[in-house]
Amino acid sequence: MASNSFGSLFRFTTWGESHGPSIGVVVDGCPSLIALCEEDIQPWLDKRRPGQSPYTTQRNEADRVKILSGVHEGKTTGTPISMLIENTDMRSSDYSEIKDKFRPGHADYTYMEKYGIRDYRGGGRSSARETACRVAAGAIARKVLGEKVIIRGAVIQVGPHVVDRTGWDWSEVNKNPLFIPNALAARFLEEYLNQIHNAGTSVGAVIEIIASGVPAGLGDPVYNKLDAELGNAMMSINAVKGVEIGDGFASASLTGDTYADEMRAGPDGTPVFISNHAGGVLGGISTGQNLVIRFAVKPTSSILQEKKTIDVEGNNTEISTKGRHDPCVGIRAVPVGEAMVACVLADLLLRQKSLKGNG
Amino acid sequence: MASNSFGSLFRFTTWGESHGPSIGVVVDGCPSLIALCEEDIQPWLDKRRPGQSPYTTQRNEADRVKILSGVHEGKTTGTPISMLIENTDMRSSDYSEIKDKFRPGHADYTYMEKYGIRDYRGGGRSSARETACRVAAGAIARKVLGEKVIIRGAVIQVGPHVVDRTGWDWSEVNKNPLFIPNALAARFLEEYLNQIHNAGTSVGAVIEIIASGVPAGLGDPVYNKLDAELGNAMMSINAVKGVEIGDGFASASLTGDTYADEMRAGPDGTPVFISNHAGGVLGGISTGQNLVIRFAVKPTSSILQEKKTIDVEGNNTEISTKGRHDPCVGIRAVPVGEAMVACVLADLLLRQKSLKGNG
Amino acid sequence: MASNSFGSLFRFTTWGESHGPSIGVVVDGCPSLIALCEEDIQPWLDKRRPGQSPYTTQRNEADRVKILSGVHEGKTTGTPISMLIENTDMRSSDYSEIKDKFRPGHADYTYMEKYGIRDYRGGGRSSARETACRVAAGAIARKVLGEKVIIRGAVIQVGPHVVDRTGWDWSEVNKNPLFIPNALAARFLEEYLNQIHNAGTSVGAVIEIIASGVPAGLGDPVYNKLDAELGNAMMSINAVKGVEIGDGFASASLTGDTYADEMRAGPDGTPVFISNHAGGVLGGISTGQNLVIRFAVKPTSSILQEKKTIDVEGNNTEISTKGRHDPCVGIRAVPVGEAMVACVLADLLLRQKSLKGNG
Amino acid sequence: MASNSFGSLFRFTTWGESHGPSIGVVVDGCPSLIALCEEDIQPWLDKRRPGQSPYTTQRNEADRVKILSGVHEGKTTGTPISMLIENTDMRSSDYSEIKDKFRPGHADYTYMEKYGIRDYRGGGRSSARETACRVAAGAIARKVLGEKVIIRGAVIQVGPHVVDRTGWDWSEVNKNPLFIPNALAARFLEEYLNQIHNAGTSVGAVIEIIASGVPAGLGDPVYNKLDAELGNAMMSINAVKGVEIGDGFASASLTGDTYADEMRAGPDGTPVFISNHAGGVLGGISTGQNLVIRFAVKPTSSILQEKKTIDVEGNNTEISTKGRHDPCVGIRAVPVGEAMVACVLADLLLRQKSLKGNG
Repeated sequence: MASNSFGSLFRFTTWGESHGPSIGVVVDGCPSLIALCEEDIQPWLDKRRPGQSPYTTQRNEADRVKILSGVHEGKTTGTPISMLIENTDMRSSDYSEIKDKFRPGHADYTYMEKYGIRDYRGGGRSSARETACRVAAGAIARKVLGEKVIIRGAVIQVGPHVVDRTGWDWSEVNKNPLFIPNALAARFLEEYLNQIHNAGTSVGAVIEIIASGVPAGLGDPVYNKLDAELGNAMMSINAVKGVEIGDGFASASLTGDTYADEMRAGPDGTPVFISNHAGGVLGGISTGQNLVIRFAVKPTSSILQEKKTIDVEGNNTEISTKGRHDPCVGIRAVPVGEAMVACVLADLLLRQKSLKGNG
Repeated sequence: MASNSFGSLFRFTTWGESHGPSIGVVVDGCPSLIALCEEDIQPWLDKRRPGQSPYTTQRNEADRVKILSGVHEGKTTGTPISMLIENTDMRSSDYSEIKDKFRPGHADYTYMEKYGIRDYRGGGRSSARETACRVAAGAIARKVLGEKVIIRGAVIQVGPHVVDRTGWDWSEVNKNPLFIPNALAARFLEEYLNQIHNAGTSVGAVIEIIASGVPAGLGDPVYNKLDAELGNAMMSINAVKGVEIGDGFASASLTGDTYADEMRAGPDGTPVFISNHAGGVLGGISTGQNLVIRFAVKPTSSILQEKKTIDVEGNNTEISTKGRHDPCVGIRAVPVGEAMVACVLADLLLRQKSLKGNG
Repeated sequence: MASNSFGSLFRFTTWGESHGPSIGVVVDGCPSLIALCEEDIQPWLDKRRPGQSPYTTQRNEADRVKILSGVHEGKTTGTPISMLIENTDMRSSDYSEIKDKFRPGHADYTYMEKYGIRDYRGGGRSSARETACRVAAGAIARKVLGEKVIIRGAVIQVGPHVVDRTGWDWSEVNKNPLFIPNALAARFLEEYLNQIHNAGTSVGAVIEIIASGVPAGLGDPVYNKLDAELGNAMMSINAVKGVEIGDGFASASLTGDTYADEMRAGPDGTPVFISNHAGGVLGGISTGQNLVIRFAVKPTSSILQEKKTIDVEGNNTEISTKGRHDPCVGIRAVPVGEAMVACVLADLLLRQKSLKGNG
Repeated sequence: MASNSFGSLFRFTTWGESHGPSIGVVVDGCPSLIALCEEDIQPWLDKRRPGQSPYTTQRNEADRVKILSGVHEGKTTGTPISMLIENTDMRSSDYSEIKDKFRPGHADYTYMEKYGIRDYRGGGRSSARETACRVAAGAIARKVLGEKVIIRGAVIQVGPHVVDRTGWDWSEVNKNPLFIPNALAARFLEEYLNQIHNAGTSVGAVIEIIASGVPAGLGDPVYNKLDAELGNAMMSINAVKGVEIGDGFASASLTGDTYADEMRAGPDGTPVFISNHAGGVLGGISTGQNLVIRFAVKPTSSILQEKKTIDVEGNNTEISTKGRHDPCVGIRAVPVGEAMVACVLADLLLRQKSLKGNG
C-alpha cells in the first residue's frame, strides 16, 4: 500500500532507487508566498552528501537539486514543489554478488518476503540515498518554520565512545566530518573510525537534535503527541533502532521529585522552567523549552568481514560486502535527523494554526 | 484538529475524560466473521484496572466494557465496534486545587497553551484513564491477529533497579502486581515501591514487550516502517519518553560484525536467524523473528512533595498533589503497551493483505 | 477497512445499527472554546426525526442526544465530543422475513458479498438511522462555521413533479412536512405522496441546499476541490445517485459566453458576480457567492409491492417489505444534506486556516 | 495543506504547472510483480493528447512519459513509480494579458483569494494539463485491475445535442476525434463544434463511463461508498459540475416498483439482475453489474468573446482569451474520466483484499 509519504498538512512523498536515473521528492502543503530557490536547499544536501570524507561512503554524487514546480518568481505558490536529484555515480558492478544472496542486517530478505521481488542494485529503495530527499524536504520545512526555530544536531556517541558534554561547542559541529560538538573528541573519533574501517567492520552511533524557538502548543494530546510524531519520524530513518525525548531511558531511574520541571513566572509573562527533564514536551504538547531528541543508529550492515547467510534459493552460503560503504552510517544521519525534526514541526505548526482564530 | 484515532485500516478512536460520565472507543476496520463477545475483552481491562494493589492508584473502577455495535449473533460484521466503559469512582473534591495551578510534569500548562481551556477534573483527557480504551481495542486486535501471534509484556526496570534477565519466567508476570518476570525481583521491588510511596514521591520504569509468531513481511520500507509504527505507538502512551527495538541504544556500541544477525537454512524452508539484535525488523519489515520492544516511562508526575509552579494568572506558587496516584505509572503501562503492539500488528497485517493475490 | 469516518481536520466517526441498543458519533477536531450544549443539537435531530408525518417511516424515536465528552462548563475543550442516541422503538418482528432474502435495491446482497455476514435487523448499519449521527455532527459543524454561514435545504422535486421556483419561500420550508419552499406545491405533493403510499410503492426526489456567507478561498485546487468534497459528501448519503453544483448537468447545454459569471468591482472592495452558474465554486475553490448543491435521491427500496429476488441460498423467490417505511426517503435527506454540507465547510475552514499567517 | 494526492492504498500524487519545465506523478501502492513499461502508459496519454484535431487546444505536446522509478527488469517492485512528462510547447506570450486580469469562469480569482499569488502562465496548476498525470496513473491502475475489468468512456452530449443511444457502437468511439459512440452523430457534432468555434465561444458536454467486470463487494457501506468515491473522483476533474450513477437524476422521477433491480438465480450461481437502474452499486458496494457513471462538463471558460471582469487591483475591465483552447473541454475529459474510474477501482480492490482471508 501507499507508504512513501510523510506528514499530514505539510506532507512530502519520496521516490527513486539508488541506481535508477534519479531520485526525488514532492513537497505538498507548503504555504504560499515563502521565498524559495534551489540555493535554499543545496547547502543542506551538501552537508549530507557522501564522498566528502573517508568516514562516509566513497560514492561521489554532486546531489544537485532541481526545483521543477511550485515556485513562481522566487516564491512558493501553495502548489506542490517537485524536486529532482540525478544519480550520477552508480557502479553497478560493485553490487553484482548481492543479487542472489541476502546480506545480514539488510532489508534484502524482508523485501523478498514482502514483495517477492527487489531491485538489488545498491539496495534499491532501501538505500540511504533516499534520505537526500528528506533533507531537501527539511530545507523547505525550515523555511515554513521561520528563522526563530533553530534545529541543530550532533553526533554524541560513536561505538562505545560517548562525547564529553562539558565541552559542547555548536560551532565545532560543522568543522569536523563527524559532526562532533567538541574538537578534541572529533580528532579521537576520526582515529577510532579509521581503525574500525581498517578492521573491515563498522560501528553504531547516537545523535542528538536540539530544536530551539519552538512555540508552545504544538502536538496533540493523545495519538499525535509531539513525542509520538518524533518517535515515528526518527524511527523511519534507515538503521535507527531507538529514540528518546529529554531524559529518555534515564527517566526510568529518576524519582518524581527530581524529574519535575518546576516553573516560575518569567520576566515577560512566559513561564520559566527550572529544568527540562521532559525535553520540551508535556502531555504530548510542546512547552516552549528546547526540544531534545536523541536516536541510536545501528552499525552499518555492509561490512568486509565474511558472514553466514542464505541465498535466494534457501541454501547456506557466506557473504562479505565489498562496495563503498560508511564505517558509521550514523554520521550522515545528523542532517537527516535535523530534516525530519523540521518536517514534523512544520506539519504541527500548520495543524496548530487550524485551531486558532474563530469561525 | 482530529487526533484521537490510531491506525489506518484497523483504526480506533477514543473519547472521554477522567471525570465525565463514561469513556469509550470505536474500533473501525475489524474484519467480519470473527467471534467476539465482551468476555474476550474484559480480562485485559481487568489486568489494567486500577485499585488492585497498593502500587497503582486507589481509584476503584469496575471498568466493565459494553459492546454497543458491530457484533451480530456473536460475530463481528465488519461494521464499527463501539465500546463504552462507565466512570463510577470519580471524587471531584480530590482535584479542586489543580483547577488554578499548573502541576509540574503534567499537561496542565500545555493544554492551556494549546486550547485556552482544560477540563481539570482528574486530568481530563490527559488522564491515564484513556488507556483503558486502548486495552479494549487491543483485545480486538488480538482476535484479528489470531492465536499464533502472542504478545506479552513485563516490567524490566523500576527506578534504578534492573530485573535480572537470567531468571526470566513469563509465568511469574501475572502472579505479582508489578508484572515482574521473576518472583524474587518482584518481592524486592514491591518493598522498594513501598518506600518510594512513603517518601511521597514516585519512580520511573522500563517495560519490554515481546511479540512472537509475527509473520515476515509486515511493515513498509520507508515511512511506515514497523519500527516507526511501534515508535509512534509506544510514544503515544502517557509518560513514555523513550522507545527501542531489539538492541536499541545498545546498538550504538556494537560493531557491524557483532550486530549482524546471520542466517542459516532452516528445517522447514524458513531461514533461521542465529541472533536477533535487530529485534525482528530489518529495513522496516518484520523478519518473522520475535519482535522486541522496550519503552521507558517517566516517574508519575503527581507526588505529595511540594513543588514550585505558577498559577493560571502567572503568579508563583507551590503545589503538592494529594489525590490517589500510582507510585510508578509504568506498571499499568504493561497491558497498555501490549495492546498498542497488538493494534499496530493488526493494522499492518490488514495492510499487507492488500498487497497479496492478483488483480 | 476503517471507513466510518468523514473529514480530515474536522472529522466525525459514526457507529451503531438500526436495532442495536444505541447509535452514536464521535466528533474529533472541533476547536475549543465554542459554547455547546445538547440544546444546540437537538432541534436538528428533531427536524430529521421519523414518525412526525405520514410521509416518513412510522418508527417512533425520541432521538434524544446525550453529550458524553468534550464539553466542560458549557464550552468545547478541543477534545473529542462523543454523542449517543438510544434506539427505543425497535420492532424486530417486522424484519423477520428479510433475514433470508435479499431485498431488491437494498444493500442486503452487497453486504453479504463484502462481509459474508449481515445484521439484517432493520437494515443494520445500512439503515437511514445512521444519518441521525450525521445531523448531530452537522449541528456542531454549524457552530464551528459561526452564524454568518447559513445552510438551508429544500425538496425541489418529488417523483416527476418539479416545484415551481418562482414562488420560492424559505419560510415555508419548515411549515410543511415535505420541506417544500412553496405552500401550494407542498399541499399538492402531500396529496401525491398519499397516492404513492396507497399504491404500495415509493418515489424519488431532488433536494437543493444553499449555503450563504461562505468565505472565498475554501477548497483545494486539484484533489480536494470543494466540488469534489461535496460530491463525496452528498453521494455518501443513503440512496443518493446524483449530485450537481450550480447549473450542474444543465451546464452541458450552455455556451461559454452564457455560462461565464462576469465580475464587477463591488462597493466594499469585494467583487460582485453578475451571475452564479458555477454555484459558488471556481477551480475547486469557493468564490464567496452562494454555494448551490443539488442531489437526487432514488425511490425508497422498501415497498409493499411484491418483487422477484433470490434468497441467501441462491434460490428464486419473491419479497414485499411490510415494515414501516418512508414513501419518499428523499424528504428526510434535507436535514442530512444540510448537515453534510456543514461538515464539509467546517473541515475546509479549518484546513484553510492552516494556510494563513506566517511561520 | 497537502491536497495533491488521490486514493488511499493505491495513491498517486501529481505535481507541475502548465508552463514549468515538466509535470509528473508518483504512483504509490502499486502491488509488486506487475509487468509494466512505458509502452503500457503511452497509448492512454496519446488518446488525451492535445493538438490532434481542431476540437481540442492547438497546443502541441509530445507527452512522452518517462518512468523514473519503481520498475525493475520490466516488473513493478512495490516501490513508488515516478513518471515525468516534459512540457515542450509553451508559448508564454499567449498568456501575457491574463497576468493582471481575472478570467471569468477560471480559477484566477479564487487562487488569489486562497494563496495571494498565482502562476498565471497557462493557468499554472489549474490547467487541464495536470490531467495528463491522471491518465498516466490510470494506465497503471488498469494493470492492477487486470484484463477482466474493462473501462470505457464516450461523449453522450455536446451542448444541447444528446447522442442517440440506439446506435451505440463502442468501436466508433476511437474512430472520431470527439469520442462519440455513433458515426453519424460524430459527423454532426464535428460540424456543430466548428460553428461554436467560429462563433468565438465554447460549449459543455456529458460523458458516460462504463466499467464492466467489476467484482461484487467493492466500496464501503457508509463514508467510502463506491458512489461517493466516484462522485469525488469525477468532481475532481477540471470543469466537471455534476455526477450521477446509474439512472442518476432520472431516479427522482421513478417509482420504487419501477426502479427495483430484481434478481434471479443465474446459471453459474451468481445472481442475475433483471435491470441496472442503480448503475452497479447498492448500499455503496458494487453488485458485479456494469458500473455506470455520467458526468457533466461546463463549457470551456477561455473564449474569444469579450467579457466583463475586474483586474487584480479591483478595477472594472474586459477580457477575451486569445490563446489556444478547446471549444469543448469535455471531449478530452473522456480519457481522464476513464483513468479516474480505474484509479478508484484499483484502490477499492486493494482495500477489499485487506478484508479477506483470516488472521
